[in-house]
Amino acid sequence: MNISDVLKKSSAQLDVELGNIINNYNTLSSASPGASCAAVVKANAYGLGLEKVVPAIYYNTRCNVFFVASLSEAITLRSILVDATIYVFDGLFQDQVDTYLTHNIRPILNDLNQIKMWNSRRQPCAIHFDTGINRLGLSKNDTEKFLNSTNDLNITLILSHLINSEDPDHKSNIDQLNKFTKITRALKNIPASLSNSAGIYLGANYHFDLVRPGIMLYGGNPGLPKRPSGIHDVITLSARILQIRNLNPGMSVGYKAIWTARQPSRVALLNVGYADGIFKTSDRNAQVFVAGALAPVIGKVSMDMIAVDITERVFDGVGVTDIVEILGSHITLEMIAKVSTLEQYEILTGIGFRYNKNYNLRI
Amino acid sequence: MNISDVLKKSSAQLDVELGNIINNYNTLSSASPGASCAAVVKANAYGLGLEKVVPAIYYNTRCNVFFVASLSEAITLRSILVDATIYVFDGLFQDQVDTYLTHNIRPILNDLNQIKMWNSRRQPCAIHFDTGINRLGLSKNDTEKFLNSTNDLNITLILSHLINSEDPDHKSNIDQLNKFTKITRALKNIPASLSNSAGIYLGANYHFDLVRPGIMLYGGNPGLPKRPSGIHDVITLSARILQIRNLNPGMSVGYKAIWTARQPSRVALLNVGYADGIFKTSDRNAQVFVAGALAPVIGKVSMDMIAVDITERVFDGVGVTDIVEILGSHITLEMIAKVSTLEQYEILTGIGFRYNKNYNLRI
Repeated sequence: MNISDVLKKSSAQLDVELGNIINNYNTLSSASPGASCAAVVKANAYGLGLEKVVPAIYYNTRCNVFFVASLSEAITLRSILVDATIYVFDGLFQDQVDTYLTHNIRPILNDLNQIKMWNSRRQPCAIHFDTGINRLGLSKNDTEKFLNSTNDLNITLILSHLINSEDPDHKSNIDQLNKFTKITRALKNIPASLSNSAGIYLGANYHFDLVRPGIMLYGGNPGLPKRPSGIHDVITLSARILQIRNLNPGMSVGYKAIWTARQPSRVALLNVGYADGIFKTSDRNAQVFVAGALAPVIGKVSMDMIAVDITERVFDGVGVTDIVEILGSHITLEMIAKVSTLEQYEILTGIGFRYNKNYNLRI
Repeated sequence: MNISDVLKKSSAQLDVELGNIINNYNTLSSASPGASCAAVVKANAYGLGLEKVVPAIYYNTRCNVFFVASLSEAITLRSILVDATIYVFDGLFQDQVDTYLTHNIRPILNDLNQIKMWNSRRQPCAIHFDTGINRLGLSKNDTEKFLNSTNDLNITLILSHLINSEDPDHKSNIDQLNKFTKITRALKNIPASLSNSAGIYLGANYHFDLVRPGIMLYGGNPGLPKRPSGIHDVITLSARILQIRNLNPGMSVGYKAIWTARQPSRVALLNVGYADGIFKTSDRNAQVFVAGALAPVIGKVSMDMIAVDITERVFDGVGVTDIVEILGSHITLEMIAKVSTLEQYEILTGIGFRYNKNYNLRI
């Protein structure tokens, strides 16, 4: 066996099904037939790897608009895609103007001062109108001022952010929709965008000209009662059994001895811990999948290791070096989020750097 | 301004004081005067960057023994330090034997099967005796079997792990000490190691020949009532203000509107979010430091952004582009851990990949 294979097997593994990201994109695009569909790829494509995820989407779908958080992310993305349209949520600082222009990146202008900085440039930009998130974007006052003034901007997109899109019955959705619709009427002929992943499923009047899903591209559920059909899991994380221990009743496992065997027990130690992002010591009732069954994670999660109870007879055949699913088709992101203090978004973006990464493209 | 400076300023910043890691090493080494002092640098030096941390320690202290979790980490470390002694906690698989030998890396053998694999090699190795953690290591039975047999191993270290070392009064400490002492007597002339960071402060009889601190090198406190004097903070995280918003009473901030202004409020938006690892949406009462005072984090933490309430008069001078401390001398790791569902170890190793990293060496 060559050294690269040896080292791969010494780490836990992250498998990314790029084909499923593409399928998810197509599902989201089909769900918003009147609009174009962009891809939100900030935070290193939600932790999964910008360099692999972005070309997979760009070269296999009609997507040519991408959103990132910072100028720094945009420059990395530009080095991967020379032609695509790139928007930056963070907005514009004075010292960034030249870099935006040189690399053909479009700032999302968030206040009147940023608009002033970009006004004479005649290069493409977006404007973010705040309709209730009170985070970034033009406030109500600034929106009125802006709409009542003239400008020299080349505005290629106007956008706003929904705050409760995963709750179809929340009154804030219709309220934000009305506010944003009013703005789009004042700025007709400029493409408009309101919906994130969940917003797409609020209905056609939320789609405008461009939808911009993030989490659902990666198989996550932003909090809808049920993940829409056609959205598939994208990642599998798997670990390896380092050692198996037989414990007598009364023996405890791990730091601070928070789990004690009540019966003669068989415990597997896996090469994945909180430094790999997926398990937190505050998680309770986490499980892994091995030998066709679910096995409970026991004791305190270590930095590089977890312990799993494989006492049940179904696990009799399990041995050292066996591979265990810690996230995938049997242990879903949804199941992990349920036992974790973290949300699906946080779990995805928090997946650590130590995995041996493997990207599959089956389409 | 050149592009590299522009991009640096578009990300949140991680400053690592390598001099303080060296000082912390020297403090820990002085606290265990009868023993040598190793450095635990697994998980990319607890998230801070192996490539920078390890040479700083190696070339500025007497440390020449390093511990990592996996063979993969060891190979990376070997590429940085050609000469140092490297031990791997994960143990040995059959397919790894050649790689260990080729790269002069020492496995920590965790069971009789691993001992058998390495037995005829005559190359250095460590043996891990489990004295109560019931994680990796030779069980009580295997320990007895091993001590009553002969072998051809070249054992350069025997070790065990304390499970409650941060609690000096816990009876498990003396119990593990007695068990380990018994083993060291049976294997006299072989160097022995029991203590992690907190174990060093349990007293000289816990030091044996080698201590192996981790978290305290990086300024963390493993849970002692008070961090020992001579252990200093190592990292500073800082973010930049992207925008400042004035809110009227009743206006809410962020997704799901979990924070609402009760008075006319001034809110700063910072370019750091949960994808940067430090804030979790489940955290409550987190604070940042700006203009000489503490300001509360409000609303739901976003992937790339947090909101901070800067209504108080002390913040009147605060403006867009200002730099805010999110972890450092005013907001300590201890303070963050208190408001987080995560422990100090998890916060350190979970610091994200997006920071502009800056390493200072002042010694």
